[in-house]
Amino acid sequence: MAVGNVDFPEMKKVSGIRLGSSNAGIKQTERDDILVVEMVEGATCAGVFTQNAFCAAPVHIAKQHLKHNPRWLLINSGNANAGTGKQGMIDGITCCNALASEVAANEKMVLPFSTGVIGETLPVAKIEHALPKAVANLQEDNWNNAAHAIMTTDTFAKGASFEVEIEGEKITLTGISKGAGMIQPNMATMLGFIATDAKISQELLQKCLATAAEQSFNRITVDGDTSTNDACILMASGLSAAVEIVENNESYTIFSRAVTTICKTLAELIIRDGEGATKLMRILVTEANDNEEAVLVAKTIAHSPLVKTAFFASDPNWGRILAAVGRSGIDNMDLEKVAIYLDDVCIVENGGRAESYTEEKGQQVMDKEEIVVLVVLGRGGAAQEVLTCDFSYDYVRINAEYRT
Amino acid sequence: MAVGNVDFPEMKKVSGIRLGSSNAGIKQTERDDILVVEMVEGATCAGVFTQNAFCAAPVHIAKQHLKHNPRWLLINSGNANAGTGKQGMIDGITCCNALASEVAANEKMVLPFSTGVIGETLPVAKIEHALPKAVANLQEDNWNNAAHAIMTTDTFAKGASFEVEIEGEKITLTGISKGAGMIQPNMATMLGFIATDAKISQELLQKCLATAAEQSFNRITVDGDTSTNDACILMASGLSAAVEIVENNESYTIFSRAVTTICKTLAELIIRDGEGATKLMRILVTEANDNEEAVLVAKTIAHSPLVKTAFFASDPNWGRILAAVGRSGIDNMDLEKVAIYLDDVCIVENGGRAESYTEEKGQQVMDKEEIVVLVVLGRGGAAQEVLTCDFSYDYVRINAEYRT
Repeated sequence: MAVGNVDFPEMKKVSGIRLGSSNAGIKQTERDDILVVEMVEGATCAGVFTQNAFCAAPVHIAKQHLKHNPRWLLINSGNANAGTGKQGMIDGITCCNALASEVAANEKMVLPFSTGVIGETLPVAKIEHALPKAVANLQEDNWNNAAHAIMTTDTFAKGASFEVEIEGEKITLTGISKGAGMIQPNMATMLGFIATDAKISQELLQKCLATAAEQSFNRITVDGDTSTNDACILMASGLSAAVEIVENNESYTIFSRAVTTICKTLAELIIRDGEGATKLMRILVTEANDNEEAVLVAKTIAHSPLVKTAFFASDPNWGRILAAVGRSGIDNMDLEKVAIYLDDVCIVENGGRAESYTEEKGQQVMDKEEIVVLVVLGRGGAAQEVLTCDFSYDYVRINAEYRT
Repeated sequence: MAVGNVDFPEMKKVSGIRLGSSNAGIKQTERDDILVVEMVEGATCAGVFTQNAFCAAPVHIAKQHLKHNPRWLLINSGNANAGTGKQGMIDGITCCNALASEVAANEKMVLPFSTGVIGETLPVAKIEHALPKAVANLQEDNWNNAAHAIMTTDTFAKGASFEVEIEGEKITLTGISKGAGMIQPNMATMLGFIATDAKISQELLQKCLATAAEQSFNRITVDGDTSTNDACILMASGLSAAVEIVENNESYTIFSRAVTTICKTLAELIIRDGEGATKLMRILVTEANDNEEAVLVAKTIAHSPLVKTAFFASDPNWGRILAAVGRSGIDNMDLEKVAIYLDDVCIVENGGRAESYTEEKGQQVMDKEEIVVLVVLGRGGAAQEVLTCDFSYDYVRINAEYRT
């Protein structure tokens, strides 16, 4: 029940990045659930990870291995290897070892990622058994299969791909993401893997990714639940004909913007696939004192079950938005200065219902599938946007049935 | 679909407190929706109110009038008079005036309260028209009708009543509450009205109420949405034969505990009537560094849609509880020291699933209607409990249909 057009796009190959998937039978018997990604020698790789204090074993391992110039990613869906204690660490490293011996490398050059149910032991033997086939399948033109292999409760595969020009030479950015529930990423998304053929140092690549994640994956929420396994990886093969990207020149600006654009596209796809979602809401808070304040107000609205169910019902019950703004915890808020709009319809001004507002106007906006909620705080110059979706019967169904 | 036994109890009269209700036809045509409460001359009255920055007009007025030795409460259900701007203030004061002239008093001696839909103008004429009948109905033995008159989406009337002894003399505490959605009170509940015949100064009464509210109404949550209209009032007629309650003696301790007890009972009834609730969860966090930390962890669990839907499904999906603890924002959490129990079944210890845990044991607890979730943080000596309910299809139905 995706919101809007979510057709899988044409995915441009990224020279130097090969992908191979196979079925390990972790939870799926018919769909691939293992993905191996190989980077050409000399590629750089950046990563951002969940801030959940109880991050999963693969997150611990990937953070460590990121320091050792990794060249392989090993991703499984169907099991998060989270809440698995010491055994989880052993299992994660065992899987890295298995891939490392398959490709004749050091296990520290493998970054592991897991997504799926929390608290169950990783079926290591199944993964080991499926690895050779995934490695045999490695090819540059395999992004579609890769996007499918990392899905869990996702209802469609998520990808984005485009080219930008740097000093007359093209560079390509192609990426995939997954996620539909337990989505309020903090420094990263559920899982995102992005590749480019740009030439750029690891430090600068990390800076680009951190900036992009803050404005994309960290600005979406389905249910406010930050996962134990969030991770987003940006790989740069360096094989494009473009010059190396260095700091503080125009090429860096172009590249950094391109990374933010692809991250925003992949993040928005996650919200379009939010569990049970029927609508996409862009919560835009302007005239805040600072970005933190703007995000706080936007997320309070985005997390309100009452606001989310009203959107599901296409009910212009703006009092619930007003109440959410009021409880968001901003000091010295002046209600008289606050204005709230649904798309271009002003619903609240001067502390009460706008004089020009009619239920009919509100209803016209609420009947749409994508809606902008604009909150003008009248306090300062900062603005931030958070994307979210509504709360439907299907959200309850999906999450009440998830393990059964 | 209430959780547990919610039979309306026998309500003891409180000497000096009379109640009268009538139907104004605000939203209900068959049920009373106006309640007038009269306190005997010389009674004291304490109140706590919502901390929502956009508090409703009646909350503004009641806070002001509380300074003028009020003797009447005027409560309407069906309309919150919130988000109504300047007109809301005029309407609230007009209603106070109407009751004041009916009982020949100053309008500052009337505290107004409203609950219901946000953003619609208060139907003042209807309330004025219904007031004489409510005043004519004033009697001490009218708590049952009063509890019904303040209901909105509540599925049952909520009351509590008992006696305690102070130096050999009985004093009575009787109270009512309402609320089922938009429930995460902050300093107060949705609406609570409690009366006692104890003799006690306004200052000391206020202290008792603030202490009690913090441990009762401020420790419950249905959906995390703090209302614009929360208020709890404690009235003391002073007509019991017991000595006046003064600070720092045993009578104060007995009285303060009794107030906390009645507040906890009324707060728990709100959770038992949580919108769509099928289960009641007591989230107990122990070994925290301080109370704030314990409440933060407990509320993060209590607000997690994933945790709430798992409880609705009776699914021992403890990974969701673990993830919620991890994202609660506590610094330097040591997963190795955390333990989590469902009732007396240990599910998590040393960072992973407890060795003694089986799905069968977890399932046995989850099949119950009332469950204790115990989280041991292993950090310090503070403990706090938060009460909440699950998230069901009916929560979505009730809130998607509320205005239609």
